[in-house]
Amino acid sequence: MSRLTHIAESGEAHMVDVSDKAETEREARAEGRVVMAAETLDLILRGDAKKGDVIGTARIAGIMAAKRTSDLIPLCHPLMLSKVTVDIEADLALPGLHVTATAKLKGQTGVEMEALTAVSVACLTIYDMAKAVDRGMRIENIRVLAKSGGRSGDWHAD
Amino acid sequence: MSRLTHIAESGEAHMVDVSDKAETEREARAEGRVVMAAETLDLILRGDAKKGDVIGTARIAGIMAAKRTSDLIPLCHPLMLSKVTVDIEADLALPGLHVTATAKLKGQTGVEMEALTAVSVACLTIYDMAKAVDRGMRIENIRVLAKSGGRSGDWHAD
Amino acid sequence: MSRLTHIAESGEAHMVDVSDKAETEREARAEGRVVMAAETLDLILRGDAKKGDVIGTARIAGIMAAKRTSDLIPLCHPLMLSKVTVDIEADLALPGLHVTATAKLKGQTGVEMEALTAVSVACLTIYDMAKAVDRGMRIENIRVLAKSGGRSGDWHAD
Amino acid sequence: MSRLTHIAESGEAHMVDVSDKAETEREARAEGRVVMAAETLDLILRGDAKKGDVIGTARIAGIMAAKRTSDLIPLCHPLMLSKVTVDIEADLALPGLHVTATAKLKGQTGVEMEALTAVSVACLTIYDMAKAVDRGMRIENIRVLAKSGGRSGDWHAD
Amino acid sequence: MSRLTHIAESGEAHMVDVSDKAETEREARAEGRVVMAAETLDLILRGDAKKGDVIGTARIAGIMAAKRTSDLIPLCHPLMLSKVTVDIEADLALPGLHVTATAKLKGQTGVEMEALTAVSVACLTIYDMAKAVDRGMRIENIRVLAKSGGRSGDWHAD
Amino acid sequence: MSRLTHIAESGEAHMVDVSDKAETEREARAEGRVVMAAETLDLILRGDAKKGDVIGTARIAGIMAAKRTSDLIPLCHPLMLSKVTVDIEADLALPGLHVTATAKLKGQTGVEMEALTAVSVACLTIYDMAKAVDRGMRIENIRVLAKSGGRSGDWHAD
Repeated sequence: MSRLTHIAESGEAHMVDVSDKAETEREARAEGRVVMAAETLDLILRGDAKKGDVIGTARIAGIMAAKRTSDLIPLCHPLMLSKVTVDIEADLALPGLHVTATAKLKGQTGVEMEALTAVSVACLTIYDMAKAVDRGMRIENIRVLAKSGGRSGDWHAD
Repeated sequence: MSRLTHIAESGEAHMVDVSDKAETEREARAEGRVVMAAETLDLILRGDAKKGDVIGTARIAGIMAAKRTSDLIPLCHPLMLSKVTVDIEADLALPGLHVTATAKLKGQTGVEMEALTAVSVACLTIYDMAKAVDRGMRIENIRVLAKSGGRSGDWHAD
Repeated sequence: MSRLTHIAESGEAHMVDVSDKAETEREARAEGRVVMAAETLDLILRGDAKKGDVIGTARIAGIMAAKRTSDLIPLCHPLMLSKVTVDIEADLALPGLHVTATAKLKGQTGVEMEALTAVSVACLTIYDMAKAVDRGMRIENIRVLAKSGGRSGDWHAD
Repeated sequence: MSRLTHIAESGEAHMVDVSDKAETEREARAEGRVVMAAETLDLILRGDAKKGDVIGTARIAGIMAAKRTSDLIPLCHPLMLSKVTVDIEADLALPGLHVTATAKLKGQTGVEMEALTAVSVACLTIYDMAKAVDRGMRIENIRVLAKSGGRSGDWHAD
Repeated sequence: MSRLTHIAESGEAHMVDVSDKAETEREARAEGRVVMAAETLDLILRGDAKKGDVIGTARIAGIMAAKRTSDLIPLCHPLMLSKVTVDIEADLALPGLHVTATAKLKGQTGVEMEALTAVSVACLTIYDMAKAVDRGMRIENIRVLAKSGGRSGDWHAD
Repeated sequence: MSRLTHIAESGEAHMVDVSDKAETEREARAEGRVVMAAETLDLILRGDAKKGDVIGTARIAGIMAAKRTSDLIPLCHPLMLSKVTVDIEADLALPGLHVTATAKLKGQTGVEMEALTAVSVACLTIYDMAKAVDRGMRIENIRVLAKSGGRSGDWHAD
């Protein structure tokens, strides 16, 4: 990890200039999971959570949050996502729900933050909808799985 | 974990009615952490990250996000936070940053989601500001530490 | 319909002062419908629309929009909804979908606009998700069905 | 109406991928109307409504709402409108106000939803500003009048 | 000016706790002005600005911005305004437009920031709508004129 | 100052059509200042303000506000900023803080409003964080310093 070349001398926060970057097709995939009691997962899968359909609601919340990433993360550039998907699957062994999100655009900056924000807000929505029966849930292992496009090329998590 | 008493028969998502709940002073504390390479943590602590002051920016992002919780989480009630704090500390052993948030209000619903949202967005902001040097960072262990106030009384994580 | 007593002399738009109004429990119910081709309704009910689950998504969109009413309608007061529900039912005779929304709070202003906004955005979401197969859909008959609470007392549409 | 080719197998809501669509100039025009008592229309046209200038305020509200369409409608793509207009005309025979909106951009997705959202929020604003004297108003016949640009070509309502 | 009693030891930004403050009726009035060329003011007053009715649009923008103050100013508490007014008057001697805003609520924190935000955004809107003919406009003298309510009592600018 | 060529005949507010404008690299720089008591400036520079780090927080608030310009200013086009910076410097002679902001994009409209909005919200944030000790602060001289790009070419304030 070499020293960064574009550091502002004063260390002040700023939105970095991306106007010289190429417009390329970029895609990112991120994941995360909500670990919960087996009874909680069962309740969600049976559709019996107090606030209603957990998985469908969390999916919508994640997609909408991806579109608001630059509103939430101070130095993210606003950008025009061409696609967002959020998938949520039960993992009985965890036990819990596993969330994956994909974001895509043709533009000058990567979309990792959009995919990560979709995952985070989907996980928070799951927590919200099931917290009446299980306050001890934990959101775990939110990370980027893969990214493609841009100067730095493709990247995959180990 | 007994069966829920207020389940909508159809399982449709809805904002639960809180109008009969007492207005009490409520507080919640949540935590989370960003696990990173030792060099990344060192860079952040030296104030050399590409986008500027990571910890100060993440703290502001977390506080602002707490205020937007009901905009992000579909079935959260809008509420009038009386206090939000976000604390971020380095953990050299992790290595990474540990984030804690506290939210408080006098009202009819708890503020766990506000504290959790503050933690999540602070962690996402840390990721954003350091991702140029470390794509492999992970956000871990977001959970509620304690809540007080409301019918269900006080609760602490084990 | 008598002359209004609180008209600003100049006719300039302003948010009216509600600080002297009593805090009472207020509730409003509104409805609307999306008229479409029979094949479109069939497609939606079979769960085959291009963008996915139409009814579940429209319900969430309506609930979230209710919370943003004062952001959208210039002179609406911000308020703290204690409950929002959105119900969507198929009407094979129309043919189309019938949307009903209920909003509730304890406060100084009525919640008709919140119920109407929920209905409107739920209808727009239905249009969005089915427009690939039916551009000729129409949103019809958005209106308040009933309101209760406040100085003007209860009111029902004929 | 043939079967859709791009349906997600699971029927889950998602933002469809538009990255392969051509960037063309796209325009859409939508309309709607608010039906009210003759006295209410008269009051609005005389500039005597309680909250001030109804037509001017509704026009601004509609324009601002068009820019927030992707924030409100879960699966709409964010896009960069190059033009929005909202026109509001009195219809003494209705009696009521007739609202028309036009949206335009050069991009990969159509702008029907932006035009429809502008019309809907302009109508809601009219309702809000006149509801003190006329709770029985109805919002009617919101629909797309015409669209141009994109693969599907031009389209006009009958 | 004595030393502050509630300073966070570390100097970190945080939303101060207002939960112990009394709920009182609070009001604040703020002002500002846009200084411009005499021809620009004349154009605005004649209603000939390129983007349309400058004064009416700026008034609405100011009112809407007051409601979003806590979204914009990081450490402002969310609050429920009971009234907002924005007045804009021509000052031929300046030459320019003079903007005054009043905000009011019953709550635990003052509303100076809401009044100041309304003034600022109304001034920015004036600039936006007239900038095609006059880039040299300046926004001047934004300040609080008076506040009432709360522990610190009434205050007036000299 | 000649008569405007694109005035809507009716004088109604509308978002002007920019679809025929060339996509060029555009940049704008704006400034403003907060005038305060010498003791207030001293308090800020010592890091002793009640709400925490004033300058760092105001910088972030300004950057985030620039991204929300089209949400706040009714007739501004949404656009995709490629860079935003906010600089804040103490001026002991004023006494007060001097704020400068730069915005940049490749697009069809200028970015003066984004730079001015960043300056305004940074100034408001400074006021908010120091108002507990100095209600008499004033925001002064917000103006565009320079713009480049677009049909009208480069422009500098005198």
